[in-house]
Amino acid sequence: MQKVIFDTDPGVDDAMALLFLARHPEVDLVGVTTTFGNAPIDITTNNALFLRREFGFSAPIAKGSGDKYQPGRETHPFPTFIHGDDGLGNIGVPDMSGEPLDPRPAHEFLIDMIKAHPGEITIVAVGRMTNLANALRVAPEITRLVKQVVIMGGAVDVPGNVNPAAEANIHGDPEAADAVMVADWPVVLVGLDVTLKTVMTRSELAALAARGGPAVELLDRLSQFYIDFYSGQVEDAMVVHDTCACVYVVAPELFVTRPGAIRVLTTGIGEGKTMQKPDGMRFGPSAWDGLPSQLACMDVKAAELLALVEETLVRQ
Amino acid sequence: MQKVIFDTDPGVDDAMALLFLARHPEVDLVGVTTTFGNAPIDITTNNALFLRREFGFSAPIAKGSGDKYQPGRETHPFPTFIHGDDGLGNIGVPDMSGEPLDPRPAHEFLIDMIKAHPGEITIVAVGRMTNLANALRVAPEITRLVKQVVIMGGAVDVPGNVNPAAEANIHGDPEAADAVMVADWPVVLVGLDVTLKTVMTRSELAALAARGGPAVELLDRLSQFYIDFYSGQVEDAMVVHDTCACVYVVAPELFVTRPGAIRVLTTGIGEGKTMQKPDGMRFGPSAWDGLPSQLACMDVKAAELLALVEETLVRQ
Repeated sequence: MQKVIFDTDPGVDDAMALLFLARHPEVDLVGVTTTFGNAPIDITTNNALFLRREFGFSAPIAKGSGDKYQPGRETHPFPTFIHGDDGLGNIGVPDMSGEPLDPRPAHEFLIDMIKAHPGEITIVAVGRMTNLANALRVAPEITRLVKQVVIMGGAVDVPGNVNPAAEANIHGDPEAADAVMVADWPVVLVGLDVTLKTVMTRSELAALAARGGPAVELLDRLSQFYIDFYSGQVEDAMVVHDTCACVYVVAPELFVTRPGAIRVLTTGIGEGKTMQKPDGMRFGPSAWDGLPSQLACMDVKAAELLALVEETLVRQ
Repeated sequence: MQKVIFDTDPGVDDAMALLFLARHPEVDLVGVTTTFGNAPIDITTNNALFLRREFGFSAPIAKGSGDKYQPGRETHPFPTFIHGDDGLGNIGVPDMSGEPLDPRPAHEFLIDMIKAHPGEITIVAVGRMTNLANALRVAPEITRLVKQVVIMGGAVDVPGNVNPAAEANIHGDPEAADAVMVADWPVVLVGLDVTLKTVMTRSELAALAARGGPAVELLDRLSQFYIDFYSGQVEDAMVVHDTCACVYVVAPELFVTRPGAIRVLTTGIGEGKTMQKPDGMRFGPSAWDGLPSQLACMDVKAAELLALVEETLVRQ
């Protein structure tokens, strides 16, 4: 069993990723921390509480920061045209303020859990890197205690999605992301280089809903608005970005990775771009020198990944 | 016949490119302008004069600027470990100051030639973009009069070579390169995405020298130092970067191109990175909006390209 803390901003594709983690037999979901990105922090936290009830898991949920890592950092509008005003495809999420929330802020929850289970915790982070960077700032010693950090984010050798440079999760808090990439813990970047290859059609999701029970029916319902958005890019289908990072935890053999230090640009028109210095390539002196080698996912066996996702989502 | 002005900083791979242009039957080499990069401007200009004599062509040579486009821009050391102290593999290039040089600075020569042959001039630029940017600054109206600008430079969807972000020609004068990319003339970027696939072995070059006469023998001799450098990356061989841009002029069908606005980062650790906004992809507002669509070469039929290069170099 792998102990996983899921750092998330639900978010439509976050919801699928969460159900994947909740239902995969090799995953022990020991906590959920919320971040902002797909929607504001109050909404993503309410959505996490809602999904816990609907998906029937018991892990504690800790609310993350609603502010970027660097005080005063410029903010951007939330992508309501992708995830809906409620972050879950405008299905009308109920108010979950009666549900129990961990009393600690997300970064403290992360630190406590990591220290309580040294060498055992995998963080799967699929929103902005704010909570992780805050945890590093307060307790830099956690880098030696985490098993690995698997991130859905970035666009290494492909264009971004917010703009030609940047992927949304990294663009949303680039200083936080840079702090996470350069820290001396094992990072795996599952970015647009691979996630854009993982496409689930509307009819495939509907077929899953027909045999996966109420949780997958909910997933199907809340994904319709998102599929409408993605249909401009892929044929009547959705990209399962966040689930890819969860799949890496249980089936890393489906990915082709490239090792090398990773930085995030924090200034100029390329702000939020992730760039890797592949190990073994020769360069002059650069801002990547002397930093830990991380893994960037460059390719994926998409059909096998989708088969594993479908098989896992319908487990009861 | 295609009228070509070759903007170059010889430079070892520049020498092969120049011989290709001089010998290709469809190319009318109407001028050579020198720039700095592989070596200082006095050396690259002397080398251009030397190669004109040795290769036996008659085009005028105009000396370019030795200063970057933006006054006070930080300078970098010249890559003597790649091209030698003399820019041509330490073969001991003679002093050519007796040879005739066009009296005009390179950017004025470019402007005059473009205006004298409206719609006919192809600029093949394989060094820093300084002369082109200076020409644009003085005479922005030339954008409507140039046939196309084919550039060896940049790394679009691959790492750079100076550092993980930037390719050398672009990194050497990023503001100049950005000015050239965003200008409303047709730009084709032949960058590391394709040039790194075009590898000529030491023995292949030696075989060419045996049947190509004194010019190719010289090419072979001046390339040995460069091949020694590249042998750290490719097996006893050289990458024919600059020649790729020349091949594009006569055989564009060998390349796969991607259209879209191109920008160059001019600040931060990603300085000198070329980034494209592919046409048809959806993004939020960005610094690429409203700019002309340029072509980035993304793939190349390398074997066919090399065959064309070899066939052309040995023409007498």
